[in-house]
Amino acid sequence: MYRPQIKVCDCTIRDGGLMNNSKFSLEEVKNIYASLSAAGVDIIELGYRNSRSFFSPREYGDWRFCDEDMLKKATEGTPKTAKLAVMQDAHKAYAEDVLPKSESAVDMIRIATYVKDIDKAIKLANNATDKGYESTINIMAISHVIERELDEALQQIEEETTINACYIVDSFGALYSEDIDYLVHKFQRYLRTKEIGIHCHNQMQLGFANTIEAIIKNVNYLDGTLYGLGRAAGNCPLELLLGFLKNPKFDIRPVLNIIETTILPMRSTMEWGYTIPYMIAGMLNTHPQDSMDLMEQSRQQQVMARYVKFYEAMLGDENA
Amino acid sequence: MYRPQIKVCDCTIRDGGLMNNSKFSLEEVKNIYASLSAAGVDIIELGYRNSRSFFSPREYGDWRFCDEDMLKKATEGTPKTAKLAVMQDAHKAYAEDVLPKSESAVDMIRIATYVKDIDKAIKLANNATDKGYESTINIMAISHVIERELDEALQQIEEETTINACYIVDSFGALYSEDIDYLVHKFQRYLRTKEIGIHCHNQMQLGFANTIEAIIKNVNYLDGTLYGLGRAAGNCPLELLLGFLKNPKFDIRPVLNIIETTILPMRSTMEWGYTIPYMIAGMLNTHPQDSMDLMEQSRQQQVMARYVKFYEAMLGDENA
Repeated sequence: MYRPQIKVCDCTIRDGGLMNNSKFSLEEVKNIYASLSAAGVDIIELGYRNSRSFFSPREYGDWRFCDEDMLKKATEGTPKTAKLAVMQDAHKAYAEDVLPKSESAVDMIRIATYVKDIDKAIKLANNATDKGYESTINIMAISHVIERELDEALQQIEEETTINACYIVDSFGALYSEDIDYLVHKFQRYLRTKEIGIHCHNQMQLGFANTIEAIIKNVNYLDGTLYGLGRAAGNCPLELLLGFLKNPKFDIRPVLNIIETTILPMRSTMEWGYTIPYMIAGMLNTHPQDSMDLMEQSRQQQVMARYVKFYEAMLGDENA
Repeated sequence: MYRPQIKVCDCTIRDGGLMNNSKFSLEEVKNIYASLSAAGVDIIELGYRNSRSFFSPREYGDWRFCDEDMLKKATEGTPKTAKLAVMQDAHKAYAEDVLPKSESAVDMIRIATYVKDIDKAIKLANNATDKGYESTINIMAISHVIERELDEALQQIEEETTINACYIVDSFGALYSEDIDYLVHKFQRYLRTKEIGIHCHNQMQLGFANTIEAIIKNVNYLDGTLYGLGRAAGNCPLELLLGFLKNPKFDIRPVLNIIETTILPMRSTMEWGYTIPYMIAGMLNTHPQDSMDLMEQSRQQQVMARYVKFYEAMLGDENA
């Protein structure tokens, strides 16, 4: 038996873009969009709508900005079955970069925010809904929040916005199932008129399992990515999520095919998925940047990373 | 707060031996045994005590038989802090191959069995306990059992043996957390005088998560392997398990170090861990052998496996 309220959102290009500065080719994005549409995914996020004043176009690819002409090129030729989403970072995006819905290919704007930036996020979310879009607020780094501040933010979101869903984002892949259970119940207490979403990272191989835990607790907005492509150890793998969900509208074949033809070849230039440096970061509940640096360094020098030394250094950081 | 009753069993050499016909070098096994002992692991399983009449010594390495002299060589020089275990397959081992405990380096004999072979398993388990060993019965392929037969087997185990623990073995990596919950409760209903154990495979990236689910439900015997080394997608990674458990006797450093120096280099000859062919097998609740064959074939021919074709073929098998 399936729950028709469940919405699956693929964020391969958006979260994967944190591994390559959003430098996917138009061809790759077109193919991924077509495959996800054929698979029956509800929402497809093609990147960020962030500002060029924060990200140099010399360093970052098209999908950090998602200009309307690029979105049209990426989606034309594919029958429209999914909602098209872009993300705005609360602290790196402007309301003016969002056109009225009638002039845009976008259906949904997702606002990523730290708890401290919640007022910026609410402003951007209301900008989106006022202009005719669906919207979400995605609370990042949730394993580092001061709980009183989270409570206040949730209260504000409930009272001051009309977003469709508010996401729990485990940016550091540090949560266990009991933490998911605790946070979902908290979100449900405050957000009586909103759906809840879940976005997991896989530092401890719990991305899929924690998504299931959230489903069991009635979370309805579920993020996944193809073969887990995303920052550090990546995300909940979409193929596993579709395999778990029972809604007959999903077809896993286009997902398997695009993983084979387009995603796996990317492994020659991007190293995502479970590794010991990412595991250490998840276990210690820290940002994976040091782990990403360590892995890049050992890849360039073609030497094995020294794990115990790295672990001790990370423990040192923690104690600082 | 930790539960002192919890016993962590490492089965890297035993389950990993299903990927290389148990052909680990003595040096590798010595180093792994020493590291696991230093890490505070409770039980270390160094391989099978199976019969040479079922496994040709020309094809299989020393750790398929675990002769006493090999065990002595592997463990000498390391302070004894862990119990030493070997596994007997109910349908491929003989009681006579087990010496009285006083003449052996082994502390625990684990009997792996399909439900249909439960009488053989009980005979071997009682042989082990009669000769002075601790013992377990590990019920394999639990996602394929006929439930009435499982009930009967559990009843027999409770009445006819004095084993220390009975394991739920998710050989096909096909179980979700709700299945673990269901099975643990069933085992607890029948096995009122025995501990329960959990041994997971990682076909759907749920090995660690399902082990946590079992811990929450009061399962106390927990199997893991270094970096998940084991058949197909492998097992619950020991490093994640030790990171989760709170008992201060565990030290993760020797585990990180042996993974770096000894386990990761094995990836040049063995391909374990999450892949799409294993995922398909887990999702369809089938033995991973076809997936292993597909991956070996595509490795030898250096071509990408065709996932959709493989998926359709596996669906065909399922419908047969």
